[in-house]
Amino acid sequence: MGMADEFDGLEVGFDIPARPGMAAGEIQTPCLVLDLDALERNLVRMRDFVTAKGMRLRAHAKMHRSVDVARLQIGMGGAVGICCQKVAEAEVFARAGIADILLSNQVRDPAKIDRLARLPLFGGEVSVCVDDLANVAELEAAVRRHGTRLGVLVEIDVGAARCGVATPEAAVDIARAVEAAEGLRFDGVQAYQGALQHVEDHAARAAKFEAALAILRPVIAALGAAGLPPRLVSGGGTGSFRMEAESGLYNELQCGSYAFMDADYGRIRTANGARLDEAEWENALFLLTQVMSQPVPGRAVCDAGLKSQSMESGLPLVVGCEGVTYRGASDEHGTLSDPQGRLKPGDRLRLIPGHCDPTVNLHDWLVGVRGEVVESLWPVSARGRSF
Amino acid sequence: MGMADEFDGLEVGFDIPARPGMAAGEIQTPCLVLDLDALERNLVRMRDFVTAKGMRLRAHAKMHRSVDVARLQIGMGGAVGICCQKVAEAEVFARAGIADILLSNQVRDPAKIDRLARLPLFGGEVSVCVDDLANVAELEAAVRRHGTRLGVLVEIDVGAARCGVATPEAAVDIARAVEAAEGLRFDGVQAYQGALQHVEDHAARAAKFEAALAILRPVIAALGAAGLPPRLVSGGGTGSFRMEAESGLYNELQCGSYAFMDADYGRIRTANGARLDEAEWENALFLLTQVMSQPVPGRAVCDAGLKSQSMESGLPLVVGCEGVTYRGASDEHGTLSDPQGRLKPGDRLRLIPGHCDPTVNLHDWLVGVRGEVVESLWPVSARGRSF
Repeated sequence: MGMADEFDGLEVGFDIPARPGMAAGEIQTPCLVLDLDALERNLVRMRDFVTAKGMRLRAHAKMHRSVDVARLQIGMGGAVGICCQKVAEAEVFARAGIADILLSNQVRDPAKIDRLARLPLFGGEVSVCVDDLANVAELEAAVRRHGTRLGVLVEIDVGAARCGVATPEAAVDIARAVEAAEGLRFDGVQAYQGALQHVEDHAARAAKFEAALAILRPVIAALGAAGLPPRLVSGGGTGSFRMEAESGLYNELQCGSYAFMDADYGRIRTANGARLDEAEWENALFLLTQVMSQPVPGRAVCDAGLKSQSMESGLPLVVGCEGVTYRGASDEHGTLSDPQGRLKPGDRLRLIPGHCDPTVNLHDWLVGVRGEVVESLWPVSARGRSF
Repeated sequence: MGMADEFDGLEVGFDIPARPGMAAGEIQTPCLVLDLDALERNLVRMRDFVTAKGMRLRAHAKMHRSVDVARLQIGMGGAVGICCQKVAEAEVFARAGIADILLSNQVRDPAKIDRLARLPLFGGEVSVCVDDLANVAELEAAVRRHGTRLGVLVEIDVGAARCGVATPEAAVDIARAVEAAEGLRFDGVQAYQGALQHVEDHAARAAKFEAALAILRPVIAALGAAGLPPRLVSGGGTGSFRMEAESGLYNELQCGSYAFMDADYGRIRTANGARLDEAEWENALFLLTQVMSQPVPGRAVCDAGLKSQSMESGLPLVVGCEGVTYRGASDEHGTLSDPQGRLKPGDRLRLIPGHCDPTVNLHDWLVGVRGEVVESLWPVSARGRSF
């Protein structure tokens, strides 16, 4: 307090939305706020879960793109490392000293392959997903050029109809080529079913997971028969992680959203019908907004619209202001229904964003709050690092 | 070429997506690309339009958040100044020397009001919208504190049901209070109907505009009767600007999207039924993406998903690759339908984003291309400056 810190010389408002030590009521809006107690409880809960199940946790850093959060997941949260989706994202984390990074995605651009092959020069382990035999030779040429080594997971399409090989034969062909390539190491398979994560009904989600297993089992069997049993079977998300853990096939989880949560994950149901945000994970991420206009009774307008949150998974929820609902957004405005007239200009509200990953990517800062005091200000280190 | 420039020391890929002088085919994806010829033709076309009509153009900088584009709009494009939606945005433009800024929005937070009142200290004219009598005293206290002066437009709700006063009496009350306040100057009214801009059918759009005029006329009459005729009647967007220009009521246009365009504005119709992107404004903004996987015949996956474009106004259009359509997005992936098998991994595609404003706000850079060469690299100067 009062001493110089890393934020000295930065103006609250222009440069940063808040400063550690200030009262939460002075944070400049719109701004992302983390309830640090809730975040830490989520991290410890997942650590205890994977420890009890004998699973590895490779936390998905695409969700938060924050070096500080990644470090907390590895330290307090029991993660063995992180996943990234983009080379530029992985570069940020590798340069910050994160020692085990899976690029859980395909890399095909020659310049990006070259950047990927240089990443182990920062001192950590780096691995990548492959779903096309031709990609193996491209990766091999790059690691030979730089004298580095990359792990490779063969990505299997287990029902999401996005990337990933479609047959056991294709998986075996790629695994063989990886094993034969100098500087590449066959680590196993990635089998992530993204399309089931947000299915609200537990039984419907479980049925999609069974369908995924039916695709995955023959792939693992074929790899074993070829003398290439996968050391890692990696996948799972916040909507399905208990299923992967019970499957007997997976040994690594890639959950991301469990740490922050959002409205879309909050409403999905656990096996006993409870909401996920009540039974399992606390909402730790909030979009703080302020009422800027109240033109007529019953309607208020707040300062958080499309540029502060991603709306494609639904509207945000309003926390702790009974009767007030978020009805619609334009670029910089949110329209609130307030039939009981609770709001006035200047009032602050916490929203639970619909979808955490693309919402966090809109912000430069995560303001950590404990009680009513700002405790931390973490940059969204890899924000916008999509290329 | 070869000489040091402002991008020296920055790595293409990690820091910047491209460097002036490089071939367009080497730009790292996903990335926003501006067709500079198309952009300049749009700016000149709008300049010629407002000149012929005797209107003022106050270009909306919320769309691009770029100091370079704002300067071009004022220089080449005939704009008298810009609009901003946020204090933090206005701070960026004021510090960059933009000399006439309208904050086309309400400011109610005490800290933000204070920051707004300091903005004229950077040397330019600054004005703001007000829709609540109580806000006048707040603004007056702040400008007295800093010895500055702010222009004020009374915002009228002309049918968008967002901010703005609902009655002529409320408008007159605020205008009177502004006139009586030390350091505030009553400039006129803002009457922007955002809800009609994207209505595809011209007749339906014109009907909504007539409804807006029916609300606006008595407000202007009441202000005149009170001895406070508005010097400025400001409003209009890319979907309605010809209507404001023909109305006889407006004298200032606030168009933003005309400079870049997007898929949503491209499909709306002019009075003679033509598409807006064929009859009037060229699409100048593209999202460059690359194919990263082609797991099965007919489906390809590209590297531009929800973190590279805002989807709330619809999916992007694929340019110049017949039969290929963008079918869906996840955070970092776009799924393409490619029934004729035209695509292979590594191929580059130009997309026209659904909605330009929130899409630009996801990116740190605008890569200007002329022909096949990168000519400019402009920062999205106020990206994320929403607080």
